[in-house]
Amino acid sequence: MIDPEAINRLKEIVGKDRCYDSPEQLACYCYDAYFEEAMPDLVLFPCTRDEVSGILKICSAHKIPVTARGAGTSVCGASIPARGGVVLCFSKMNRILEINTKDRYVIVEPGVVNADLQKALAPFGFFYPPDPGSMAVSTIGGNVAQNAGGPRCLKYGVTVDYILGMEVVLASGKVVRFGSRNVKDVTGYRLSSLFCGSEGTLGMVTSVILKVLPLPESVSTLLVTFDDLDNTAKAVADIIGAGILPVALELMDRTTIRTIEAKAHIGLPVDAEGTLLIEVDGAKEACEKEIKKITEKLGANGAVSIEIAKTDEERDKLWQARRSAYGVFAKLSPSLYTEDIVVPASKIPEMTRMIVDIADKYKLIVGVMAHAGDGNIHPMIPADKTDKEEWGRVKKAFDEIMAAAASLNGTLSGEHGIGLAKAEYLPLVMSEDAIAFMGVIKKAVDPDGILNPGKFV
Amino acid sequence: MIDPEAINRLKEIVGKDRCYDSPEQLACYCYDAYFEEAMPDLVLFPCTRDEVSGILKICSAHKIPVTARGAGTSVCGASIPARGGVVLCFSKMNRILEINTKDRYVIVEPGVVNADLQKALAPFGFFYPPDPGSMAVSTIGGNVAQNAGGPRCLKYGVTVDYILGMEVVLASGKVVRFGSRNVKDVTGYRLSSLFCGSEGTLGMVTSVILKVLPLPESVSTLLVTFDDLDNTAKAVADIIGAGILPVALELMDRTTIRTIEAKAHIGLPVDAEGTLLIEVDGAKEACEKEIKKITEKLGANGAVSIEIAKTDEERDKLWQARRSAYGVFAKLSPSLYTEDIVVPASKIPEMTRMIVDIADKYKLIVGVMAHAGDGNIHPMIPADKTDKEEWGRVKKAFDEIMAAAASLNGTLSGEHGIGLAKAEYLPLVMSEDAIAFMGVIKKAVDPDGILNPGKFV
Repeated sequence: MIDPEAINRLKEIVGKDRCYDSPEQLACYCYDAYFEEAMPDLVLFPCTRDEVSGILKICSAHKIPVTARGAGTSVCGASIPARGGVVLCFSKMNRILEINTKDRYVIVEPGVVNADLQKALAPFGFFYPPDPGSMAVSTIGGNVAQNAGGPRCLKYGVTVDYILGMEVVLASGKVVRFGSRNVKDVTGYRLSSLFCGSEGTLGMVTSVILKVLPLPESVSTLLVTFDDLDNTAKAVADIIGAGILPVALELMDRTTIRTIEAKAHIGLPVDAEGTLLIEVDGAKEACEKEIKKITEKLGANGAVSIEIAKTDEERDKLWQARRSAYGVFAKLSPSLYTEDIVVPASKIPEMTRMIVDIADKYKLIVGVMAHAGDGNIHPMIPADKTDKEEWGRVKKAFDEIMAAAASLNGTLSGEHGIGLAKAEYLPLVMSEDAIAFMGVIKKAVDPDGILNPGKFV
Repeated sequence: MIDPEAINRLKEIVGKDRCYDSPEQLACYCYDAYFEEAMPDLVLFPCTRDEVSGILKICSAHKIPVTARGAGTSVCGASIPARGGVVLCFSKMNRILEINTKDRYVIVEPGVVNADLQKALAPFGFFYPPDPGSMAVSTIGGNVAQNAGGPRCLKYGVTVDYILGMEVVLASGKVVRFGSRNVKDVTGYRLSSLFCGSEGTLGMVTSVILKVLPLPESVSTLLVTFDDLDNTAKAVADIIGAGILPVALELMDRTTIRTIEAKAHIGLPVDAEGTLLIEVDGAKEACEKEIKKITEKLGANGAVSIEIAKTDEERDKLWQARRSAYGVFAKLSPSLYTEDIVVPASKIPEMTRMIVDIADKYKLIVGVMAHAGDGNIHPMIPADKTDKEEWGRVKKAFDEIMAAAASLNGTLSGEHGIGLAKAEYLPLVMSEDAIAFMGVIKKAVDPDGILNPGKFV
């Protein structure tokens, strides 16, 4: 129970309109895109850094748990208030503070939606590369907290690669700034990179300076089909292994394609066993050359058809289809178990086979979807958490997939994070000493453990 | 004074041949490329991670300072043993443990020389992008400790952007591993990025997994001259501001060109007031297009001549000239004061003017050399540290240049680090709380402060 006096002081900071405390209101903030729930005691919507600082001072003094939330799209449970307390929802801190394309940076508040930033940059001929599947709704703050990826991160890198600096409110309420507006900066420890991906367990980001890039001259998107999933995966390993680096190289299996098509009706190749969605960008001639090289590899691995999107509309449709996959699967069943393992490119065929075999073994439906170029595979298993027998099989399959990834020099998460979902699996890829070292950092930065408690650290 | 018993135990770990303790031997390890000196008590050359761990256990128990050293090329004094104790020289841990171009990574020990890694990768058609000026001698361990940059980091990013994982021996002697072989990995805190650039103050890196890239199809190098330094700087801001991103965009002023040419005799344009060395890479047609765009911007800013290197030999010669700048300047005078400030691209003309004005004001020779595309400027001031009056002027000029960079939203260091050289300037760009936060991390990770003590943290 939170001290009522503390609650009153917290309410004073944001005012009545930006404080939720009724059960109906709180219920909307007890979950995210993961399948667990925990009720907060209070949801606060700060509008300024000073409000965030004031809130954290009070929470720190009263040892009240604080869990940050953006759009609540975390698929690892990072925004679930596992220990109750305050949910700090950044949706109202959503201003783009500066766009400077001459110096190639933007400064944004954490509540800015990724797609809104892209829209704001487009008229300048610039873009912000990280493009998580959730980009239409997910916020930059959440992207930073989870070190979000996305399809085009194959060529362009993930969120952390675009963070130049940030302002953070620490658990104590102190405000600190790291980094600068400069693309090169080795002035002191690289603390922005530590906060990026820390899932709200070390501090609250109240503004961030992001590197942006000029839009490429030309973009081409290919849809490729195979009559065999193994060949699809081999084509990926072959393209990457040959030193070709497309913008995106996305794999979808038959189950994924059929599930999307049933909803989207855009004419996806429902009879293909495997499809690849490939995008290249750059100077027009460079794109053509790259497509030629890719096409050779596709042919050598038994591609059945290769279609190039002819218009921007066709291109957008393909990407919308791909982006809808998670949402469409989520509607198939009461609970959706999504994996986010990563393996080195050469292991993609082996890992894909193992996923299919494990799902078969446990009699589960699996949709295999992957940012395949960087080895980041999302098997999606629709199931019913309340069916204990089925859920037990899902859990066993999940365990085996994790262990398989680890055995192939892979890792547990490429872009979703650990959160509630994968903490128990950390020992598969980290030693006891390495896990303890994360605890040392956490303890030093958040001594009372008020920031997003109950998660992986 | 170090406990003689501890010294004996340290000697036992590495054996007589890999332990230096005579004054003549120690004198070779009391300095680096910065102009201060401090004598170590002992220099040890470990060959394995276990030896490093054993050494740190003893040093930890006896609170003996430990300073890591690669090739000793730090220009900020990072490898100077400011508090004596042990210098841990990694030159014998110089094995390339794995080259895997199918999965685009290498695993190397810290003593591998950057250029040796490049040589090993070239036959596979791959390269490791960070290319510090010192790459012919500097080690990957040092590059990681300092988060080294280099000319082509404009397009490709700096060392931290290529670190996938690492093995670190902590002050306690415990061995921890962070990251993996995977290009995407959000499993736990991003600790490799914290160690990168920490200048040996948090742990000893004993191996590192680096991302590598396929060599581009084609490379072109341009040498451009101007009769005015201001126009040279404006051309840079104009190219970057237009969204063009060459591999490298290097600026040298007349003093720099003349100083290099006097030594190198390769026909550099000694009458030019400013020169740019520009490199583009990619598909041949893409390079041609990019050169066209760049050439337009150069013309609009009054370029006098534009020459494209016709052969690989010509290209190499230009780069060797550029890379020799620091060494050539270092021989001009007993001491060389090098700056490493960074400013946003649009501020390059203003910052360049300020440097020239400040040097004039204090009657100092200055060579202005810059990785100009990313705003990273290296003014070099040759002087004599033993001439107190002159050195006083140098110090004042240095202070003003630092303050000027900070006033333009710039920062203190782009690639050299803080070390001994710039600790006093941190308050120009970091608040007291932010500096204290670095101390919190340091204290948690190295509670006895034995790792590279006396430096910026």
